[in-house]
Amino acid sequence: MDQHIKPVALEKAYRLLNHGPTVLVSASHGGVENVMSAAWSCALDFAPPKVTVVLDKATATRPLVEKSGWFALQVPNMAQLQLTYDVGHTSANDAPDKLARFGVGLFRADGYDVPLVKGSSAWLICKVLPEPRNEQVYDLFIGEVVAAYADERVFQNGHWAFENAGPEWRSLHYIAGGNFYAIGDAVVANTN
Amino acid sequence: MDQHIKPVALEKAYRLLNHGPTVLVSASHGGVENVMSAAWSCALDFAPPKVTVVLDKATATRPLVEKSGWFALQVPNMAQLQLTYDVGHTSANDAPDKLARFGVGLFRADGYDVPLVKGSSAWLICKVLPEPRNEQVYDLFIGEVVAAYADERVFQNGHWAFENAGPEWRSLHYIAGGNFYAIGDAVVANTN
Repeated sequence: MDQHIKPVALEKAYRLLNHGPTVLVSASHGGVENVMSAAWSCALDFAPPKVTVVLDKATATRPLVEKSGWFALQVPNMAQLQLTYDVGHTSANDAPDKLARFGVGLFRADGYDVPLVKGSSAWLICKVLPEPRNEQVYDLFIGEVVAAYADERVFQNGHWAFENAGPEWRSLHYIAGGNFYAIGDAVVANTN
Repeated sequence: MDQHIKPVALEKAYRLLNHGPTVLVSASHGGVENVMSAAWSCALDFAPPKVTVVLDKATATRPLVEKSGWFALQVPNMAQLQLTYDVGHTSANDAPDKLARFGVGLFRADGYDVPLVKGSSAWLICKVLPEPRNEQVYDLFIGEVVAAYADERVFQNGHWAFENAGPEWRSLHYIAGGNFYAIGDAVVANTN
């Protein structure tokens, strides 16, 4: 793994998603790897950390998740703006060379077979907690986070450090069409 | 209702939550009203629009949602930063005067009994779709959005307009402690 990628303590993994970024969802099965973007992903629990993600039945990534029982969420950044749009708007069902076409590089973390997207800001490796009704009725998948990592250039000591990193590290928050917002300024409420 | 509050077409209601803001959750039952904040809320479907929200069993708002079958999500803004922190960190179980103490003003939309928080940027009125297993095992509630509204000063023609509104209108994205991020700059991917 890149020297800047550091493990994140599982009890702080929720912080990687807490601010509501659009994520990249990756999975593999039987030698097939794929990546899609998802705006509808959310933290679900602290310990053990759990997440939700909506995977439409039309996506090519969903069957890889269903068959393998694993997926990863990654928090992409401004440097991945076009990649994040592209992998969300072209399906591998239509473009089998999707990952190569959009320059999506993959790597593995030791001990896990789920593919991870190079150049992201954070990664959460998740084991599916099967909930057939949610999956069928709502396209809603629940995963337990079993390992988490972040790039130390933007996540330090259990905290995002967008304000100390370059603009290329800002997380992406999708709206519609090609329109996103980047995350903005840190603001602090009085905790007394 | 305030003259600036305009209905949002239901097919565009998902856009109010798509960028992952922390929300305020409001509900009432038997003359008791309450409001809490929640970072773990997410769009779930386009049409009819559905949402998820995690409501811990220790919260005072959850029984109001369970008993009434209704809740509202509101998208708070920078002008509500302290309010958003406060209603998320003090329970009405400990402070029955919570809403008065933190200056939370409520209003109603015509035709709905669920209380709405004044001064927010957007409101989604939701009817609970009962899913007992999700609620018990994961504290996860699913709602169908039956009406949505936004303040035209920050949401116009079906689109957020943070870049054209003052900084007090920026949405809030909670991390931990008193730490939030405000939403930042609009960024656009090439859709060709």
